[in-house]
Amino acid sequence: MEKYYLSYSEIHKTLKKLAGQIKASGFEFDVIVAIGTGGFIPARILKTFLNKPILTVGITYYDSNNQPMEAPRKVQWIDEVEKRLTGKKILLVDEVDDSRVTLEYCLRELLSYNPEKIGVAVLHNKRKEKRGTLPEQVEHYFVGRELADRWICYPWDAEDIDLHESMV
Amino acid sequence: MEKYYLSYSEIHKTLKKLAGQIKASGFEFDVIVAIGTGGFIPARILKTFLNKPILTVGITYYDSNNQPMEAPRKVQWIDEVEKRLTGKKILLVDEVDDSRVTLEYCLRELLSYNPEKIGVAVLHNKRKEKRGTLPEQVEHYFVGRELADRWICYPWDAEDIDLHESMV
Repeated sequence: MEKYYLSYSEIHKTLKKLAGQIKASGFEFDVIVAIGTGGFIPARILKTFLNKPILTVGITYYDSNNQPMEAPRKVQWIDEVEKRLTGKKILLVDEVDDSRVTLEYCLRELLSYNPEKIGVAVLHNKRKEKRGTLPEQVEHYFVGRELADRWICYPWDAEDIDLHESMV
Repeated sequence: MEKYYLSYSEIHKTLKKLAGQIKASGFEFDVIVAIGTGGFIPARILKTFLNKPILTVGITYYDSNNQPMEAPRKVQWIDEVEKRLTGKKILLVDEVDDSRVTLEYCLRELLSYNPEKIGVAVLHNKRKEKRGTLPEQVEHYFVGRELADRWICYPWDAEDIDLHESMV
């Protein structure tokens, strides 16, 4: 199967474009919620362009053999802050919308705090049939770049970054 | 003042080297605690080489004018997980050891949960007089790269990544 090798600088540019889309949409939000660990790097780069605080949630959906588990599981959740999400406008960020299961799980958990608004921004969306769905309360769904359903090799996972960048 | 412009790929290599130092030291740990937002990207790249879960804490020490505040302030802390830190071995990760105030603050907070061991890994250390101190319980202090006391321009803060990379 053909893979996508993506460079840091390509991803940085995609996120700059994504930030531009978010600003152009008129969607205003108070806080970025990053889904870890995949969303940490995209959220931190988006912060450069959007300048909002980041909260994180840790979700794991793949076991140590990289196989999806029955359901996503919380590694870390938002503590005293969770009450502060009530009435807030949230931008939820992850690196990739693959099966949509993790996204749906996070969105439903966040919606239980009754935020005023919620939008989603993903660095990449894989064009494929989704097993999860976006709850109807989601007002915006922003995608940095649409990709076919192939394996994505992110630069932060590279054992050898020079080799990785040579494959881009 | 001369500034350091650092590329993603240089930083990725520094973190690979840092991970090698940590492994070679024999320091074993259960969990990475990343100080956000600066530590998010270093911690996520370190995870590629160290393969441990990441928890995050959000600390802010600079106001909107980039001036240090009186004391660091929590943006997010560790919730139900905090009890799980008791008896655990922690590697605390941040991007830069500058004044050491944020590091000391985080270390003292984490030590209050009585972890079994705690070590620190920073991508960069600035060689300068420190206002904070490392508590004596800190068993290891790992540095990816030592730098003089200059402004560090991280690639994730670049408005224009091509321009940034051309300055490296």
